[in-house]
Amino acid sequence: MDKTLAGTSAAFIGLDIGNTRLTVGAADADGCLLLTEERSAPRGAESALPVLLAMARSAASALRTQGRRVAGLGLGFGGPVDYAGQRTRGSFHSPGWVDVPLAEFFASELRIPALLDNDANAGGLAEALFGAGRRHRVVLYVNVGTGIGGAIVIEGTVHRGATSSAGEIGHVVLDPEGPVCNCGKRGCLEAFAAGSALERMASEAGLSLTGRETMAAAEQGDVVCRAIVEQAAGHLGLAIANAVSLLDPDIVVPGGGVPLAGEVWWTPLREAFSRQVVPAAARTRLAPAELGYHAGVLGAAALGMQAAEGKGLPT
Amino acid sequence: MDKTLAGTSAAFIGLDIGNTRLTVGAADADGCLLLTEERSAPRGAESALPVLLAMARSAASALRTQGRRVAGLGLGFGGPVDYAGQRTRGSFHSPGWVDVPLAEFFASELRIPALLDNDANAGGLAEALFGAGRRHRVVLYVNVGTGIGGAIVIEGTVHRGATSSAGEIGHVVLDPEGPVCNCGKRGCLEAFAAGSALERMASEAGLSLTGRETMAAAEQGDVVCRAIVEQAAGHLGLAIANAVSLLDPDIVVPGGGVPLAGEVWWTPLREAFSRQVVPAAARTRLAPAELGYHAGVLGAAALGMQAAEGKGLPT
Repeated sequence: MDKTLAGTSAAFIGLDIGNTRLTVGAADADGCLLLTEERSAPRGAESALPVLLAMARSAASALRTQGRRVAGLGLGFGGPVDYAGQRTRGSFHSPGWVDVPLAEFFASELRIPALLDNDANAGGLAEALFGAGRRHRVVLYVNVGTGIGGAIVIEGTVHRGATSSAGEIGHVVLDPEGPVCNCGKRGCLEAFAAGSALERMASEAGLSLTGRETMAAAEQGDVVCRAIVEQAAGHLGLAIANAVSLLDPDIVVPGGGVPLAGEVWWTPLREAFSRQVVPAAARTRLAPAELGYHAGVLGAAALGMQAAEGKGLPT
Repeated sequence: MDKTLAGTSAAFIGLDIGNTRLTVGAADADGCLLLTEERSAPRGAESALPVLLAMARSAASALRTQGRRVAGLGLGFGGPVDYAGQRTRGSFHSPGWVDVPLAEFFASELRIPALLDNDANAGGLAEALFGAGRRHRVVLYVNVGTGIGGAIVIEGTVHRGATSSAGEIGHVVLDPEGPVCNCGKRGCLEAFAAGSALERMASEAGLSLTGRETMAAAEQGDVVCRAIVEQAAGHLGLAIANAVSLLDPDIVVPGGGVPLAGEVWWTPLREAFSRQVVPAAARTRLAPAELGYHAGVLGAAALGMQAAEGKGLPT
C-alpha cells in the first residue's frame, strides 16, 4: 500500500450493488471494516442511484465525524462492467443499467477518486489484499454462488485483460455436449457446479430442493444429494486444475455461498484438483475465502483504495 | 526496451537447447537476427555443455568482430526448468540434465548476465516482443508440435507463476476419460491435438502416417485425415477458448509445426474457439506465429536481453 495512506486516518467507501440489496461500507487502509449499512435494492438504475448516493453521503459524513479523511470510493457491480470505460454494461435482473458511468457520477458528486468493477473482481481483490490471499503474489479467486465468477489478482492488482472479461472461470466449457448454461453456451462450469446447478440436478433426481437445501441434505448423509454435491465439486476441481495448470497461482480461494458446505464438498473438490492439475503445481493451496458476508463491500472499498492510490486504473 | 540498450551496438546471444539439435544465435535490441549456427545435440548434458560453450564463445567473438557489445545471454531449454533456481529440472530424452545451473555456468564462463527458461516461454517471449504479439499487452502463445507448450506474456515479461509452471495449456484436461497423455494424466489437450496425437489417431484409423503426413493428406483432401485434423483443431479451439475466457489476452499466437497447416486446421480451430469462448472476448485475434524456424533462438536471445535489462528476473 502507498506509504502516504498507511498509518493516516484515511478511509475508503465501498458500494456493493447487488440484484436484491445495496450495501455501503467503509474500510481503513488495512481492510478493517469501519461501518456498513444495507438496504433492499429498488428495481432499476434510476431508482437505485439516488439511494446509493444518499448511502454514500451518509457514510462519508459518519466517517468525517469519526475524524477520518474520505480518500476514495469503490463500486462493485453485480453484472458485467466495461472497466476501461468505467461503465456498467447492464444487469441481467434490473433495467436501466446499460452504459451507466457510475465511477464518474460518484467521483463528481463526492469529489473523491472513484473506481468501478464487477463484484467478482471486487471480492477477489478484497480476498487478495485482506483475506485468504494476503501475502500471496498471484491469487485465483472463484466465487461459487447462484452463478460462478472469478478474479485473477497479480501483485495486488486485478488482471482484467483486453476486454475487461478476464477471470470468467464460470464460463469455461467442460463438456461441449453438457447442459445449457445461463450464458447460452453448453457445458460451462457454471452449469455443472453453481448453486443453480445443484438445484437443477436435484430437480432431475425428482427432488424439490434449492442448492442450499441440497448441500444441507448431502451433509446430513442423503445419498442422492451427496452424489450431486460430489459431482458438482468434481467439475469445479477439474476447472480449477485447468486454471492452475495455465496460471500457476500461489493460492486458489473459493468464496461465496457454496464453499460454506463442509467436507462433503471440499473433499471431492480437492481430489479432482490433485488428480488433474499439472504435477509441478499439485501442491497449490486451495483455501476458503475469509471475508465472508462482508467480502463484497470490502472489495468495493479496496477499489476505492486503488482509486486513491492510482493503482490498476484503466489505461 | 531499456533506453540504455536501444540504438547502441548491443547484441544478445541465444542458445536453444533441443532434444536433437543445439542452436546458437544472436539478436540486436530490435530482435533482428545477427547470426545463427546449428549442431546436432550430443546425447547427455556432459557432452552437450562443452559444445554449447564453444558455440557461445564463437558467437561472442564473431559479434565483437562486428563491433558489437555482447550484453547478455539467454538459454531456452527443451524440458522443465526451475526458473526461480535458474536450473534445468531434467530432460525426457537425454540424461544428465537434472538440476544443472545453466545460467550461472554461462554467466561465469562468459562474464555476462544470463537467464534460463524453458523453450515454450522463450518462444512466447520472442513472439510477444518481436513477432505476432508485438505491440500487444497480453499475449497467449501456444506451441503445437510433437507436444503442446505455452506461454503467457504480460507487458513484455513471461508470467511464470508460483512454481514456474504457468502456461502449461498442453496439460489442461479436456476429458477425464480421454486418451492417456505423455504426462500420465488422461485427456490432456496434448493427447488430443499435438502432432503425436494426429499420428495416434491416424494409426487408430489403420493409417501408418506421421502427424505431418496426416496434415498433408488432409490438405490434399483425404476424408479420413481431414476428419482427424478437424477433430484435433476443434479440441485446441476449445482449450484456447477456455484460456481466453480466463485470461482475456489481446492476442493468441499458435506457433510450432502443426499451425503451418493451412485452412484445414485453422478453420475448425477458429470455429471451435468462437463457439466456446465467453462472448465478451469473442473477437480476440488468433494469429499465426511470425518468427518460424528462428523463434527458439530469438526467444533465447530475448531472455539474454531481459538478463541485461534486469527485467523479469527470478525473485
